[in-house]
Amino acid sequence: MARGKSQTQRSRSYESDDHERGACEWCEYALVITLATILLIGVSALTIFWVFYYRGGYAWADDTPDKQFNLHPTLMVAGFITFSGFSVLLYRICRCFRRIYVKLLHAIFHALAFPCIVIGFLAVLDYHNKKDINNFYSLHSWIGFVAMGLFGIQYAVGFFSFLLLLICNKGTAGFRASLVPIHAAFGILTFVLGVAACLTGLTEKAIFGLGSEGYAALSTEAIIINAIGMSVVAVAIVVLYTVRGTGGYRVRKVAAQHPS
Amino acid sequence: MARGKSQTQRSRSYESDDHERGACEWCEYALVITLATILLIGVSALTIFWVFYYRGGYAWADDTPDKQFNLHPTLMVAGFITFSGFSVLLYRICRCFRRIYVKLLHAIFHALAFPCIVIGFLAVLDYHNKKDINNFYSLHSWIGFVAMGLFGIQYAVGFFSFLLLLICNKGTAGFRASLVPIHAAFGILTFVLGVAACLTGLTEKAIFGLGSEGYAALSTEAIIINAIGMSVVAVAIVVLYTVRGTGGYRVRKVAAQHPS
Ligand code: HEM
Ligand code: HEM
Repeated sequence: MARGKSQTQRSRSYESDDHERGACEWCEYALVITLATILLIGVSALTIFWVFYYRGGYAWADDTPDKQFNLHPTLMVAGFITFSGFSVLLYRICRCFRRIYVKLLHAIFHALAFPCIVIGFLAVLDYHNKKDINNFYSLHSWIGFVAMGLFGIQYAVGFFSFLLLLICNKGTAGFRASLVPIHAAFGILTFVLGVAACLTGLTEKAIFGLGSEGYAALSTEAIIINAIGMSVVAVAIVVLYTVRGTGGYRVRKVAAQHPS
Repeated sequence: MARGKSQTQRSRSYESDDHERGACEWCEYALVITLATILLIGVSALTIFWVFYYRGGYAWADDTPDKQFNLHPTLMVAGFITFSGFSVLLYRICRCFRRIYVKLLHAIFHALAFPCIVIGFLAVLDYHNKKDINNFYSLHSWIGFVAMGLFGIQYAVGFFSFLLLLICNKGTAGFRASLVPIHAAFGILTFVLGVAACLTGLTEKAIFGLGSEGYAALSTEAIIINAIGMSVVAVAIVVLYTVRGTGGYRVRKVAAQHPS
């Protein structure tokens, strides 16, 4: 979009490199985005398939706590992996968009992730209470707690600075630019902790659901659970690869171009 | 060390910023290094304490497979977290050293990590065979497999390019410089996968060792296992914070200063 316009216009998009990108770069770009899209949608699809085929589907009622639990992995994977993953990748996918549109899309994806995470957490909390199991005993829940806390803080900071942008764009540019590297770094941290929570959660559920001997027998369900986990790992690799350097170079360069 | 020397000398160290660092930056530097050192040593110390106090210590004999298993978490944490963590941090800690010394230290730390990982893997493989348990059934072992594979490849590539440096420094500088961002990116990936393997492994061991009810009762041992896991998370945060941008800006800047 910004191509061919003046330098000022150009630096308002995320495409701040000063050279035209060659065929090779476009090729890598198309490959990464296709791969990321397949993996991000695939990991949620695989989780839903697993729940329906092996875990009896979903419900939220007093006599079916196990089906209620199933909401937890599904919504957590949707919120922390699929929606958050797309939301982070946007900054690379929409390189030629104007920045305000990218920010809007970023906000929309996180607005989708938010209720997923809240309901996903309430599902397992209520499940524990119904079954009289302690809350927050596991390493998984501790990691998940930190991940959710960071997500909440990031959400609040992002919301606040977005509001500032709408109210007083020029006057707050310097302040908002100084938030960007911090927001980016903590965003990546939140994402990585979400990934760690997913992997430990899947491990727990595999052992709880199949028993330690059952898991070791490597039934089809065990393979599917492992496959969900490896897809989460693959998503993490692609996302981290795509945003590499975000906490450092590129963003700071943009910020430097827009001193207050 | 390189301070005060000519510009050419200076750019041979990792301190490639062109300003003197202020008190604030030195303060952050000292803080991060102290914190990292405490955490890196602490996580191994805590693991050893856990094994001795709750898991009966170490052994390698046919009648004590469980004590033999204990070598696995200890050596894996030492290899993938403590030694690898220090080895990665070196590039930030020794900013004023000449690059050849930093590379040597990097090689030495990884030379320490290597046998830990090999013996740690053999310990659990042999344990599984003695107890007639399937190999490679769990998500943990799949993640661990990828982490160990990447570690091996990284080790080979690093060794090879170090050899090139000794044999033919000037002629291979361009080639070696082009390897640096790839080696750095895959190094970080290997470290993160090692962290994921530790977290899933601890989750498994907590449930196997204490039973699912026992774990949920949150005994002192459960808290200690969770604490090891959270220390691993803290190490990951500090290490990733310290090397942020390594795959991108800083290294490329150094490489750009040394075209072939
Ligand atoms: C980013 C994703 C996730 C987060 C933030 C998260 C967070 C949490 C939290 C905070 C709890 C404790 C609730 C309580 O004690 O009342 C919990 C429990 C649980 N989660 Fe997750 N979770 C995530 C993903 C998953 C996934 C993908 C699974 C896979 C099946 C899973 C399986 C479990 C299980 C089995 C429990 C109950 C046992 C326990 O408390 O550890 N979680 N989760
Ligand atoms: C970077 C660190 C680690 C790596 C690369 C790793 C790798 C592996 C691999 C490849 C296996 C499968 C061996 C086989 O099937 O024959 C395994 C098994 C196991 N590991 Fe780890 N491990 C790591 C850390 C840990 C830690 C910290 C614990 C915590 C106690 C742990 C607990 C276990 C357990 C309980 C098993 C046996 C059950 C299973 O196969 O999943 N591991 N590990």
